[in-house]
This record gives sequence, C-alpha cells and structure tokens, in this order.
Amino acid sequence: ESGSLATVQRLINSGLAPQDVAHLLESSPPKVREILWELVDSELEGEVLQHLSEELQGHFLRDMTAEQVANVTSDLDIDDVADILQQLPERVTQEVLDVMDQQDRSRLEQVLGYPEDSAGGLMNTDTITIRADITLEVVLRYLRRHKELPDMTDALLVVNRNNEFIGSLSLRKLLVGDPQQTVREVMSTDTRVIHASQHETEVAKLFERHDLVSAPVVDAQGQLLGRITIDDVVDVIRETADHSLMSMAGLDDEEDTFAPALKTSRRRAVWLGINLITAFMASAVIGLFDATIEKVVALAVLMPIVASMGGIAGSQVLTLVIRGQALGHLSSANFRWLFNRELIVAAINGVLWALVIAAITLLWFGDPGIAAIIGAAIIINLLVAAVSGAALPLIMKARGIDPALAGSVVLTTVTDVVGFLSFLGLATLFYL
Amino acid sequence: ESGSLATVQRLINSGLAPQDVAHLLESSPPKVREILWELVDSELEGEVLQHLSEELQGHFLRDMTAEQVANVTSDLDIDDVADILQQLPERVTQEVLDVMDQQDRSRLEQVLGYPEDSAGGLMNTDTITIRADITLEVVLRYLRRHKELPDMTDALLVVNRNNEFIGSLSLRKLLVGDPQQTVREVMSTDTRVIHASQHETEVAKLFERHDLVSAPVVDAQGQLLGRITIDDVVDVIRETADHSLMSMAGLDDEEDTFAPALKTSRRRAVWLGINLITAFMASAVIGLFDATIEKVVALAVLMPIVASMGGIAGSQVLTLVIRGQALGHLSSANFRWLFNRELIVAAINGVLWALVIAAITLLWFGDPGIAAIIGAAIIINLLVAAVSGAALPLIMKARGIDPALAGSVVLTTVTDVVGFLSFLGLATLFYL
Repeated sequence: ESGSLATVQRLINSGLAPQDVAHLLESSPPKVREILWELVDSELEGEVLQHLSEELQGHFLRDMTAEQVANVTSDLDIDDVADILQQLPERVTQEVLDVMDQQDRSRLEQVLGYPEDSAGGLMNTDTITIRADITLEVVLRYLRRHKELPDMTDALLVVNRNNEFIGSLSLRKLLVGDPQQTVREVMSTDTRVIHASQHETEVAKLFERHDLVSAPVVDAQGQLLGRITIDDVVDVIRETADHSLMSMAGLDDEEDTFAPALKTSRRRAVWLGINLITAFMASAVIGLFDATIEKVVALAVLMPIVASMGGIAGSQVLTLVIRGQALGHLSSANFRWLFNRELIVAAINGVLWALVIAAITLLWFGDPGIAAIIGAAIIINLLVAAVSGAALPLIMKARGIDPALAGSVVLTTVTDVVGFLSFLGLATLFYL
Repeated sequence: ESGSLATVQRLINSGLAPQDVAHLLESSPPKVREILWELVDSELEGEVLQHLSEELQGHFLRDMTAEQVANVTSDLDIDDVADILQQLPERVTQEVLDVMDQQDRSRLEQVLGYPEDSAGGLMNTDTITIRADITLEVVLRYLRRHKELPDMTDALLVVNRNNEFIGSLSLRKLLVGDPQQTVREVMSTDTRVIHASQHETEVAKLFERHDLVSAPVVDAQGQLLGRITIDDVVDVIRETADHSLMSMAGLDDEEDTFAPALKTSRRRAVWLGINLITAFMASAVIGLFDATIEKVVALAVLMPIVASMGGIAGSQVLTLVIRGQALGHLSSANFRWLFNRELIVAAINGVLWALVIAAITLLWFGDPGIAAIIGAAIIINLLVAAVSGAALPLIMKARGIDPALAGSVVLTTVTDVVGFLSFLGLATLFYL
C-alpha cells in the first residue's frame, strides 16, 4: 500500500505535467482527492492550483495560511494569481498581499482592481515593451539580454514616452525584417486593442473572430496595462459554452463533478423546489376541470401528450435563441424575421402533428370529439410554445435575468399551463 | 435605395474584416443574406467563406462552378480549403482539384485523405522546417530570406534528413539564444506531437491542457506532415461545446439560426415525432389505470407532479454526466463513486420533497392515502431518475449512441413511465 503511494507520489511530482495532476484531482472522488493533494510537493502546488476549477481552488485554499498562499503562487503569472486570490475571502486576500514583495503586490492590485469577468481581470502584466524610434537590430540585441521571453509572446508592444500603446511588432515581422529598419516602419498600427473594462465574453469573441494569440490591454487613457493571451481566452470560451448547458439543467457551470453528496443535495434541492412550484401550477389548472375528467377519463390519459409536445417544441426554439444570443447573431433588426419564421414552423408542425395525434386518438378511443379537441389543443400549444421560446430569452436578457437558467422553467410552466388549459378547457365546453 | 446599397458594398469590401462580413451573413435572414453575398467582391469570397459555418458554406458553394471554387479558395490555408471542399459533393471536389496547380493539389489531397474530424483534416502544411546541425545565426539569416512567416508561427520545426520530426525551436528561444549555438543545443525535444489519425477532440484537449499555440502533426512513421494551430482548435472547442447544448434539444450544432421556415419545419418535425412516441407510451401507462382515475380524479390532477419531478432530477444527473464525459473526468474507476453519490442525493431529495408534496396534497385534498401514495411515488421516481441519468450516458456511449442527442428522450420516457406507473399503480392497489 505505502509502496504504491510512493509510486503515485513520484508520478505526480515528476512524471506528470501540473495540468495532468489537476485533471487527476478533478476526476477523483473527495477522499482520493485529499490523499492525492497531500502527495503534491509544495513547490508544485501553485502550478496545479492554477489549472483547477474555481470550486476546487477554493476548497484547497481554505486550509492554507496567507504565507502559504503567497509562497505557492509566487511563480505564477499575475492573472493566474489574481484568479486564485479571488477564491479567497477579502480579508485573507489582503493578508496574502501584505506578505508579498512590493512589485508583485502593486501588479496584483492593478489586476484585482478590475472585475474577475473583465479584460482587466484576465490580463497579464508580463509584456515586453519597446519604443518606436529604435532599429530592429537594437530590438534583437535587447531581446538577447533576456533569459527568456514570457509565454505566448507573439509580439512586442510599442509604446510612446507616456506609456501609451501605439502599435505592435510581431516576432514574425521582426525575424524577416531588415535590421536597419526602425520599429515604426515595420510595426502594425491596426492591432486590435482591448479596454480593461470590456467583458470577457467580448474579448473571447474578438480573439475567436480575428484568430489572435495575444492582444494589448489599455486603460481609458490609452495607457498600456498588460496583455491577454489565447490560453486564458480558451478557458473563457469553454466556460461560456459550459454555462448554457449546465444552467439549462439548473446546475452551476463551475460545478464539481465529484462534490460530496450533502453539498450536491442542497444545490439540487433548490432547483427541484422551483420546479415543484411550476408543477403545482399545472396541477391547479387540471384541478379546475376535475368534473370534466371524471366524466371523460380519456382526457386524463391524453393530456400529458399536449403538454409534452408543447414543451419539446418550445425548448427547441428557446435553445436556438439562447445559442443565437451567445454567438451574437440576434439583434432587434433580425429578431422579427426569426419570430415570424418560428410562428410559421409552429403552424406547419402544429397542423402536421395535430392530424397525426387526432388520427391515433380516433383509433384508440373511437371518439371524433376528443380527436378534434386534442388536435386543436396541439396547434394552440405549439404556437404558444414558439412565441414563448422566442420571446422569453429576449425579455429576460433585457431585464438582466439569465435565460439559460430561468428560460426552461418559465417555458415549461407556460406550455404545461396552456397545454392543460386548452385541452381540458375545450373539452369542458364540448362535453358539459 | 441604390445609394445605401453602394454604401453597404463599400463597407463589406473595404471597411469590414472578412470575419465581420461572415458574421453579418450568419446574422441575416435568407433574402438579405443573398443580397449581401452578391455585394462581396469575388476576390474576398474565399476569405469570407472560410469564416462561415459549414451549413452556409455549402449553401453558397452550391451555385459555383469548379473553376470559381478553385479561384475563390486560391489564397486560403490548405486546411481551410479542405474544410470548404468537404462541403461539396465528391464529384465536384474532384473537378476543383483538377483545375488546381500541381503543388496545391498534392497538398490538398494529403489533407483530404484524413477524416474531417481528425488531426490530419485539421492540419495545415505551411510549416517552416530546419535542420538540427545549423547555428541560430544561420536560422536567423534563413528566416530573413522569407518575405513573411506563416500566421501563428510560434516555432520552427526541426527534422532529420528523412523528414522525421525531432524537435522544435520556438521563436522566443531563437530570439534570446546565443547566435553561435546550434539548433540541436537549443531546441526542445519534449514537444507534444500529434498523430494525424487522432480525433479532433483529443487534439483540443491537448491544446487546452498544455496551452499550446501550434503543434506538429506526424504520420504513423514519425514523418512530419504539417502543424495544427490554436485558431482551428478554438473552432473545435466551440463546436464540441455547442454540440451538447444543441443535441439535448434535438438540434443540429451546425444549425443555421436563420434557416428558411420549410427546412426548419422538416428538421424539427423529426424530433417532435420521436418525442410523440414516448408521450404515447406514457399515455398508454395512464390508460392502464383509467378505472382508478375515474374513481379518484385527484390522481389525474396530481400525476404530472410525479413525472415532472423525476424528469427534472434525472436531467440534472444526465447533464452532469454528459459534461463529465466531455471533460474526460469520468472513467469506470470513479463512476461507481458517482453512481452511489447520485443514489444518496436522490434518497435525500426524494424524502425531502416527498414530505413537502405529501403535506401539500394532504392540505389540498384532505386524503392521507393519496398523500402517502404520492410521497412514495416521488421517492421511487427520483431514485429511478438518478440511476437512469447516471447510467444512460455510459451505456449509450459504449454502444456508439450520442448521449447528448438520445439521452434526454430516453430519460424522459423512463421518468414519465415510472412516475405514472408507481403513482397510479400504488393508488390502484390502495383503492381497488
């Protein structure tokens, strides 16, 4: 047993990359996770922490002192340290800053001054800056004085004497350029510049659309603050995409797959409770028509079909619109077209499936009345589902509610209530 | 009108980047889209095409001749041309290859020889290769003979005389290194190498985990074929994440937000049809108990609650497991733990909500029998939901079925059937 632990320890500390150790921790149940974390050498802890999800970062940091946190993070990039510190309570963050050296502290405070989900919170301060009036030869000599260049450096940033960003010189251009040319002659001035206050999803769109590896970050006065690199943007892209998927099931996108049972139960209970309210609303609607159901029990047998078809059709529209919002395809200019298209689609599919369902109902119960009623209810519910699925995300977004989180609950409430109301309501008019 | 069209045309062809034009096309309804496409200068068409979704690429390519396709794609990267050609029928692709020059054709045939979703289909052949025994000074002179280096070049690839990959020299190391050192002394030999046959999601995981900008691609013999760059990997990451979200609503992840109504109706109809079958299965279960419902109509009022709570609880587990599979967190080693955790969570939430629902039922209908029965049914359905939600994705994946696509349909069928069966079945035992 202790022999195999020693093997694992060797593997963790010299065989595997820190990223792989992080992945191993993410993939382990709580107890195994604690044992593995104990085996990680303290000088590797920072590297591993940096690659863990926020949830796990917070978990392991909770047991560390401010000195330990400062030690563990001393070799990391500023933006990664900032990410880690943001998992700590405000008071502890201040303690960690207090034990850091002056330069690290002031750099960190700059990054921590911006919201975690802004360009400022994502940026790194390890830029190599040069002036425009020197020759490429001087640049090459200057670079050779460095022991190494920061990771993901694909360009040198050109600033004037006020530290304002004026252009960038890509390493690719530096290497093919004539050494006698000046930076000003070779640098590109149409570089996409990011403002520190921009939201990280805007940054991700920019990187994705223009195939960037890194981009300079400036403040409101145009002064260079740092740069953002593609590795951090990839994380943003992954998280944003994850967010929609997880939210639609009422899950947190930072959710730890291997969270303990009690923690998981508490989180899930909230979502079940919210959905229970909507389920009781649907029941209340059915309750209005108990006399009709007592008379024609076939209605009870068939009513879930109307609600379910509406739910499915609505969630297709909802998902499409939420994805369209995320990709930035939807605006008020083209929403009208989309809305009309969805109404047409709902009408076509409504009529198609109303006929199919009416035919099956007729064969099953031999009652043309019920067949006609369920057909009509299907058409009504599919139309309402289309309108709700298309409109809800827009209304919610305008009010600052996350459509991925709240959309499906509200939509299901609408399609359940309308489904039962139209089907049982029409039946009541017909039979009573 | 014609004046504003001219403005738009100027904007498209000189004001906007090709990526922005592509985004504009993606965000436009069909008719506007055709008009805008007509305005794009033919020498820009290739650049714009490259940034469109496959669905739109196919749409615009359909109207072009082989010569037009060859012209339009002549300035693009090989991997992007390959992506575009893969949207064409086999016969047309051959025609396009026939009108290309010899070098382009042979490079393209190499990329097209690999599946679209493999590393080989993703790679580019524009690598700069060097030999190990030359000095950095020679490398610098060699590079200066180029007019420019390929986009996203962050490293030169070192090969031996058999064109086998032996290491890589990053531009960052080249720039800080002593010019008298040889490439062999400076190059890194632990570069992560990708095999042409690897699946693109494996490639994406490698890039994501190790923060790569580019990586060399080799064949089974270790010969260098080309390289993969982060911009193409970002697309893979985006598509993979999109896939789960869209599939869970039965949508294609390449789905065009602004597809015409008829096309959309046809695709959606299939999904509604599949779900209708499961809805009728649930109805058939209810139908078994029509005598009981006729006697106690409160059962009809309450039964959707049991089905709905099961569906919600199950889809949370399903989503978590599908995400865990996508991130590579789940294996047979830790699945048992997850499965047990989900059973415990289901038991805790089952008992909690059974009590709440039973209490509300008792207040509403004043019948302790129904209250006890619905409580028991909730516990049963939540346990079954947990088992199905956790097990279905694994079973499906092992059989080559996409859990994101089929998971929710099968799950809902299970929770509906078990929900109605347990609630109405217990009620029948009790009341008849």
